[in-house]
Amino acid sequence: MLEEYKVKFSHFVRQLQDEITQKMQQLDAELFLDEDLWERTDFVKKPGGGGITRAFEGEVFENAGVNTSEVYGKINPEFASKLKGNGDELWATGISLIIHPYNPKVPTVHANFRMIHQGDKFWFGGGADLTPYYPYEEDFHYFHSVWKKACAPYGCYDEMKKTCDQYFVNTHRNNEMRGIGGLFFDHYNSGDIEKDYKMVTDLANHFIDSYFPLVEKRMNEEYTDEDVEFQLHRRGRYVEFNLLHDRGTLFGLKTKGRIDSILISLPRRCMYTYKYQPKENSPHEKMLKYYRPYEW
Amino acid sequence: MLEEYKVKFSHFVRQLQDEITQKMQQLDAELFLDEDLWERTDFVKKPGGGGITRAFEGEVFENAGVNTSEVYGKINPEFASKLKGNGDELWATGISLIIHPYNPKVPTVHANFRMIHQGDKFWFGGGADLTPYYPYEEDFHYFHSVWKKACAPYGCYDEMKKTCDQYFVNTHRNNEMRGIGGLFFDHYNSGDIEKDYKMVTDLANHFIDSYFPLVEKRMNEEYTDEDVEFQLHRRGRYVEFNLLHDRGTLFGLKTKGRIDSILISLPRRCMYTYKYQPKENSPHEKMLKYYRPYEW
Repeated sequence: MLEEYKVKFSHFVRQLQDEITQKMQQLDAELFLDEDLWERTDFVKKPGGGGITRAFEGEVFENAGVNTSEVYGKINPEFASKLKGNGDELWATGISLIIHPYNPKVPTVHANFRMIHQGDKFWFGGGADLTPYYPYEEDFHYFHSVWKKACAPYGCYDEMKKTCDQYFVNTHRNNEMRGIGGLFFDHYNSGDIEKDYKMVTDLANHFIDSYFPLVEKRMNEEYTDEDVEFQLHRRGRYVEFNLLHDRGTLFGLKTKGRIDSILISLPRRCMYTYKYQPKENSPHEKMLKYYRPYEW
Repeated sequence: MLEEYKVKFSHFVRQLQDEITQKMQQLDAELFLDEDLWERTDFVKKPGGGGITRAFEGEVFENAGVNTSEVYGKINPEFASKLKGNGDELWATGISLIIHPYNPKVPTVHANFRMIHQGDKFWFGGGADLTPYYPYEEDFHYFHSVWKKACAPYGCYDEMKKTCDQYFVNTHRNNEMRGIGGLFFDHYNSGDIEKDYKMVTDLANHFIDSYFPLVEKRMNEEYTDEDVEFQLHRRGRYVEFNLLHDRGTLFGLKTKGRIDSILISLPRRCMYTYKYQPKENSPHEKMLKYYRPYEW
């Protein structure tokens, strides 16, 4: 039963990877795709598994990564004890993506959906969060409304939204959030695998609708040098979060995952300025107040 | 006796801060200096101390920070136990600087010199390291030759050079160094404070000569878009090192130091590209081989 769902979920994430790839290709005629198939060989008992890393560079999407992987094998006991399961046999599969659009009116997005099996325990995790650079409040409402709708049959929006608000936080920057949140959940196992599988795949299937309409709406808008400067500084904060706080990134580095696949999350360009502040009364100054927990 | 040297060292670092500031101003007519005096108020027993943060932006020096600080007070026991002294009373003073020049032919430099007193123990630490972006081997020889000369009376070059090679390493990037090394030392106390004070201040006094002649030599050289692209990607690796590995940065963040003063080390602009590689047979491909321990 569990094995069946593992195979199904593995197929599911690869199919979602293809759908997202197609959607991006439809929107960006200049999109260059670099696909790498890699094998995992550094588990204690060597083979196996691997992944499909898809790195994109284009006109609409400056850089992006849409990755899937399925890995399994014995892990070392110290690492095993830090996970929520038991035993030293780990199996994990999932999709992880990050999209940094060129136009500062189009938000950056991150999402991932994963299934983990360790010893006789298994669970799901995942979520999606948005990092906009321009105070289009209607867009933030839209993103959250899709996730509210997605969560409605499971009554999970409030908790997953709160977990997201608490997770994507630059604690060293006065608890400023990386973006405007979304959903986040981990160690999800209600005891009914059929129900959980349905929920997680159902949520994941809402990703395309939560994000790409915003891309289509904003990708041809005009923007100023100041819009770009603000975007690049916020991307700098994105790098700070990913390298200082993100569990997924630090997990990947500590377990000697494939570096280029892990750090694909970093934006192509970013900026840092001592005491950076957007201009007074600018849209960017207004945007700053949205990087806080907020009821959408 | 110790108290006398603490006062002297505190004056010394502030004087060196002024000398470096003047040197930078001589070389960059457009240099904008933003000086912030700040007070430290978050030790367990509040006051005190503080610092002088000098942030620069100019034409020759794209961004730079030349900071001094002197802080003292009770620290929490957990943090105290991680330091090399004893007791929970800490005093620390030092100068810390980082300079990111605009022209990719001019290397980035970092240096710091500090004195720490905890309980009945005290020690010195510091060093200087260079991050060039163009394979001018003669410049790398020059930088190391100044430090060799500075170390000669103390016989400390070999060890401090080796410690530096081992410290500024991106372990997650196949052990690539951040730059071409220099000197690094910590917990230095030979038992003769007069001798140690002389050595550390003597080393620190060589900083200006180790770096600024390279700036003068290269600051007006022509450069290409490819030179800039390589520089910005290497600056990306600089950010990776500082946020993932640098003890000073992580120490500052964990002890809730002044964020803007800590992250002043980040370069104004940087880039990340999936599987970034400079062009074959380019000077930049040649430069890559220098980011390894090497006898200069």
